Amino acid sequence: MSVSVAKAPAASVPIKKSRFLIVGGASLVGSASAERFLHDGAAEVVVFDNLSQGSLTALQHLRSNPRLKIVAGDVMRLPQLLAATRDIDGVLHLAALMSLSMDRDPWTGLDVNIRGTQNVIEACCLAGVKKLVMASSSAAYGYGPGIVGKLSESTPFYSAGAPPGAILYGASKIIGEQLCRDAYRKRQLNYLVVRYATVYGERQHYRAANALYIIETHDRVRRGQRPRVLGDGSEVKHFVHVSDVARANAAAFAAEATDVAVNISGPRTTTTLEIVRLVTELAGKDLEPEHVEPDPAMVRLTSGGAWSLEHGLAEHLIGWRPEIDMREGIGRLIAWREQNDGANGA
Amino acid sequence: MSVSVAKAPAASVPIKKSRFLIVGGASLVGSASAERFLHDGAAEVVVFDNLSQGSLTALQHLRSNPRLKIVAGDVMRLPQLLAATRDIDGVLHLAALMSLSMDRDPWTGLDVNIRGTQNVIEACCLAGVKKLVMASSSAAYGYGPGIVGKLSESTPFYSAGAPPGAILYGASKIIGEQLCRDAYRKRQLNYLVVRYATVYGERQHYRAANALYIIETHDRVRRGQRPRVLGDGSEVKHFVHVSDVARANAAAFAAEATDVAVNISGPRTTTTLEIVRLVTELAGKDLEPEHVEPDPAMVRLTSGGAWSLEHGLAEHLIGWRPEIDMREGIGRLIAWREQNDGANGA
Repeated sequence: MSVSVAKAPAASVPIKKSRFLIVGGASLVGSASAERFLHDGAAEVVVFDNLSQGSLTALQHLRSNPRLKIVAGDVMRLPQLLAATRDIDGVLHLAALMSLSMDRDPWTGLDVNIRGTQNVIEACCLAGVKKLVMASSSAAYGYGPGIVGKLSESTPFYSAGAPPGAILYGASKIIGEQLCRDAYRKRQLNYLVVRYATVYGERQHYRAANALYIIETHDRVRRGQRPRVLGDGSEVKHFVHVSDVARANAAAFAAEATDVAVNISGPRTTTTLEIVRLVTELAGKDLEPEHVEPDPAMVRLTSGGAWSLEHGLAEHLIGWRPEIDMREGIGRLIAWREQNDGANGA
Repeated sequence: MSVSVAKAPAASVPIKKSRFLIVGGASLVGSASAERFLHDGAAEVVVFDNLSQGSLTALQHLRSNPRLKIVAGDVMRLPQLLAATRDIDGVLHLAALMSLSMDRDPWTGLDVNIRGTQNVIEACCLAGVKKLVMASSSAAYGYGPGIVGKLSESTPFYSAGAPPGAILYGASKIIGEQLCRDAYRKRQLNYLVVRYATVYGERQHYRAANALYIIETHDRVRRGQRPRVLGDGSEVKHFVHVSDVARANAAAFAAEATDVAVNISGPRTTTTLEIVRLVTELAGKDLEPEHVEPDPAMVRLTSGGAWSLEHGLAEHLIGWRPEIDMREGIGRLIAWREQNDGANGA
């Protein structure tokens, strides 16, 4: 077998004056990215979403911007993507089901995450899109006892002891990344994969297992209930604030780098106990956490001890580093929730 | 979220007097397994295949057996699987595209390996099949520099530096395995995953990248051409003879073990140079190998040095160990090829 490998065209898509499509954009990351791209002078930002998990409320604060366009569409419908990618310079692909949804419905999850990505790639190639930025996840390194130490981009995928839904999610992201590599090799599609740590921030939803440590704690303490900590609370987590993720997405388009995956994570790791204490403090409550045993049927994303998602390669290749620490980020999330009481995040 | 976990029914399906469906059975592993099950007294063996890659010639030697039934069917067609699983005790799921085919056509490969497995599982659950034995692969541990040492069933998936087609194949197997775990948890489907080393033997086809070291060498030396060795020939490979695989499949059904994956590999590892020398010698030729550099566009499955696929867990859980060493196995393959000149394996 032989494959012709031609040189791909220039991979930099500056935000200013360019046109972007955000697939799965009526979401936490999508809305912050749209805001960022509009702020940085994008000629147009088209949000494409089927609203099955996302919500237009996530875009409410941007609706008055004439450069924002919202298109109802589904990643499973290639013709809709073909129509939406016309005249687009850069596509940000966010549409995916995460571990909790994957556990509930693996058929839909694998369809959206794999066939959906195939459709996005196909549309990018046919429309001559200059660069695809694809959202992947630290889930591409898996879960369980193997997750320990500094995770670089060449860390393997650990699955022993992890729940099926989480493994299916991580493996679907590995497949999506490889479909991008395949398209770069065979069809010269420039792409950059961004592997996010757990994203949190304003317009937070309830679909990410690890982000629940923040918002479920906030839900409890503002009702005056003691926050709950699973086990001893020493489980290490790595978060990244959504505004840092939005900047990373913009940097991924602007960079010359192509055909590569980079980690996107916050300044430092934390533990579930630290999160619970910080949320409680920033919510202005004086409540001692109670330690509870996890429900065995719950999808838990555990690690092997001290670990971190290293973002040095992103700094090197796309000139990005995180700016928001957990105290500032959780403060912003709580302030947003207090102002938007009752509004579900997307 | 909560999931009810009921105890699954007894997981042993003795071969004698039981009825089996072999999905993707017109193949190297399928034909040897059908032969084994018929020899061990199965009441019926139904081979289900769409013949897109397999061939009925692989089953020619069994066609006179009245307990063998051949059904034209496609894993992508759930109704065909539902019809074929009626009154079946055990399903052996072999239908898959491997790395080379995955590289050529990832859409079809992911469809067959993932949606195909979903369909097989669905049919097993609806028909009340007592046990599913699913073929996985050492590809579930990946390729490249990380593949070194003794690979046990908890080894992670290495992908850094591996070609997209090989990673897509390995990840699709990981997903198939997890879909089985998910079905065991939610629907009490007993299953056993068998992760094969590179399978070789009588009725060998040209679709497995590593098995090409054997049959391409044989093709050359019997034309009087010097055999070719890639690089210095020190690349370590682990094979398993198809008759050992057929016995492993039978043992997987008969065992009480369920909800687990086991490695199935030959007595010891080898190198590409050893393979080439052994094939040349057993073909009765006196030809020195020539060392060539690999074509960069070729899909190569490399490792990090000395490694082996450990089969101790299979011995412990299903009472199986390999019997055929490479000298005997390659001798049998060459004898079969000499007798069946021109017949393509399936």
